Amino acid sequence: MTDFDDTLDLRLERVIAASPETLWRCWTDPELLKQWFCPRPWKVSHVELDLRPGGIFLTAMEGPEGERPEPEAGCVLAVEPARLFAFTDSLGPDYRPRASGFMTAVISFTPEGTGTRYVARVLHATAKDRQAHLDMGFEQGWGTALDQLVELATGLE
Amino acid sequence: MTDFDDTLDLRLERVIAASPETLWRCWTDPELLKQWFCPRPWKVSHVELDLRPGGIFLTAMEGPEGERPEPEAGCVLAVEPARLFAFTDSLGPDYRPRASGFMTAVISFTPEGTGTRYVARVLHATAKDRQAHLDMGFEQGWGTALDQLVELATGLE
Repeated sequence: MTDFDDTLDLRLERVIAASPETLWRCWTDPELLKQWFCPRPWKVSHVELDLRPGGIFLTAMEGPEGERPEPEAGCVLAVEPARLFAFTDSLGPDYRPRASGFMTAVISFTPEGTGTRYVARVLHATAKDRQAHLDMGFEQGWGTALDQLVELATGLE
Repeated sequence: MTDFDDTLDLRLERVIAASPETLWRCWTDPELLKQWFCPRPWKVSHVELDLRPGGIFLTAMEGPEGERPEPEAGCVLAVEPARLFAFTDSLGPDYRPRASGFMTAVISFTPEGTGTRYVARVLHATAKDRQAHLDMGFEQGWGTALDQLVELATGLE
């Protein structure tokens, strides 16, 4: 659905030994999402997810020393069960613009063999935003979370 | 679908003597959209509209002296034929964030008597953005365009 642009976007891709349906549940069931979405020792303390285009997507994080950064309420954009999930922080619930929008995430799940080709694309407005996301530790942060997702999803099968 | 917030948002509402289907066509058929969307003597010189969530929404304007401000490519968010249409300039095509996002427009069409209750809600991130939109001439601009829409839609019936 989305043209990937190497100069603007970031991508994580992996073939996972779990079904698209299981990976979908891990992304969209708040109790499962909490178990993998944040690289440990940080954790997700609270999730609000209204699984419809225009619905809220909010994950509150908590650090090992009790840090609690102010969570931001993003917006669900696309909901195609076991196929595609997209959300953005450029809009809030019900599509209201947000002043501090930064990225759109597009997650696709494609059956491959007995597992799933998992592709997470993270779209930015500018090359500067892409670089800022890299500097914030995108590869390690999203990579570690993906390891946690794989562990959870394969354990559920 | 959207909670209206008087401190952040702007609204135009009118009962129009045309069907929801006709008003829908006027919004979503590029050839019809060009005929009313821009207050005369300005005109719409070019439309790109991919009528699906994530599709492009672009209207290029041309002034009476040949002015051609750079058009911005926004993103379609909701497509419910003859009921609801929404788009934003906070995202570009395929949901990519845009650096200069400003508003989301949510247009609803509800049958009323032999016509339609037409509500255009324009959502902003901040009260400052709402005021800027007022200062840019929202009431006159959107109001004049709505008069042109009414003229076109009632003529089509």
